[in-house]
Amino acid sequence: MFITFEGIDGSGKSTQCQLLKDSLEDIGYKVFMTREPGGTKIAEAIRNILLHIDEPIEAMTEVFLYCAARNEHLEKIILPKLAEGYIVISDRFFDSTIAYQGGGRGLGIDKMKEINSIFIEKATPDLAFFIDPDLSTIEKRMENKELDRIEKEGIEFMAKVRKGYLDLIESQKNIRNFMTIDGDLSIKEISEIVLKRVEDFLENDRG
Amino acid sequence: MFITFEGIDGSGKSTQCQLLKDSLEDIGYKVFMTREPGGTKIAEAIRNILLHIDEPIEAMTEVFLYCAARNEHLEKIILPKLAEGYIVISDRFFDSTIAYQGGGRGLGIDKMKEINSIFIEKATPDLAFFIDPDLSTIEKRMENKELDRIEKEGIEFMAKVRKGYLDLIESQKNIRNFMTIDGDLSIKEISEIVLKRVEDFLENDRG
Repeated sequence: MFITFEGIDGSGKSTQCQLLKDSLEDIGYKVFMTREPGGTKIAEAIRNILLHIDEPIEAMTEVFLYCAARNEHLEKIILPKLAEGYIVISDRFFDSTIAYQGGGRGLGIDKMKEINSIFIEKATPDLAFFIDPDLSTIEKRMENKELDRIEKEGIEFMAKVRKGYLDLIESQKNIRNFMTIDGDLSIKEISEIVLKRVEDFLENDRG
Repeated sequence: MFITFEGIDGSGKSTQCQLLKDSLEDIGYKVFMTREPGGTKIAEAIRNILLHIDEPIEAMTEVFLYCAARNEHLEKIILPKLAEGYIVISDRFFDSTIAYQGGGRGLGIDKMKEINSIFIEKATPDLAFFIDPDLSTIEKRMENKELDRIEKEGIEFMAKVRKGYLDLIESQKNIRNFMTIDGDLSIKEISEIVLKRVEDFLENDRG
């Protein structure tokens, strides 16, 4: 089973990844948690270019770099772990490119789906959670944080990314398990909603 | 005018880039010479991953990384220089990905054309030269050289890349100016053939 968490920076998805991992391990599942971009030496080198290089990057270059890191991560980590019977939880996957570059950078959601088609074919998540707090909540959380290159884009960019996620999710209705969760609920409430959905899937939807 | 040189590693194309630049400058043209992957800070960081990281790289990851470097190089260097009226000469461009990853890595020429479609649309070279020596010549040249990650693949890989180039050029017949030159001719003979073709283009085919 492959689960992803999506959301704009500061939405609280990394916290939820960890909580879900802990809960599933308590019940007795083998769980592997990972994040994008990253996971292998090459993918981490790419992550470093994406988040820390002090030169403006063209939007399509970002897309290709995320796809490069994603391919390494998928082939060397995610697919092998799934084959070994792990539940794999990833903090971001291809939906992030669709929302960030398709929506945030304005390259278009359909074009981003096209360039991610090899990932969509090979590893569409069984469940994706979109953690969606109000933008004012995000703004407050950003104030006390050292920001990377993407986070520095500011709240107007994040609003476009959020719109990208909403459009994407709308387009996936009746196609994929993509669940939006109010990110202004408490951490505990969100984690309970997530766990219940995963347990339902493990009992009912599987196979 | 945009001119590219293509060929397998050790074919002598870099030498020909330089000779063509010198000749065109002697006649009075403004010439800008560049190479792929590279040309910007980000593209050089990507080049470093591609040629020097000591971890196996998935074939599709290579493709995405080359495309990322290419996009930076195109948008920040090649297109601006063309707009300023330079003749731009590039040592490798998208045809390299089609031959190396499509042919050499076996990902298929059509799939590589598809993923390079944004480059094909924006900047198909006015002239491309494929410098094609016998593989035994390449083998001899490799013996005395410190090899990068791609060059270490050896002569069987290079034979597949060469086949990739030949298939690509066959598919471009009547579509693009793609000229194959016997790479076992002398450096001087090759440079004369190249210069003559460029001068013909500048006098006749232009516009």
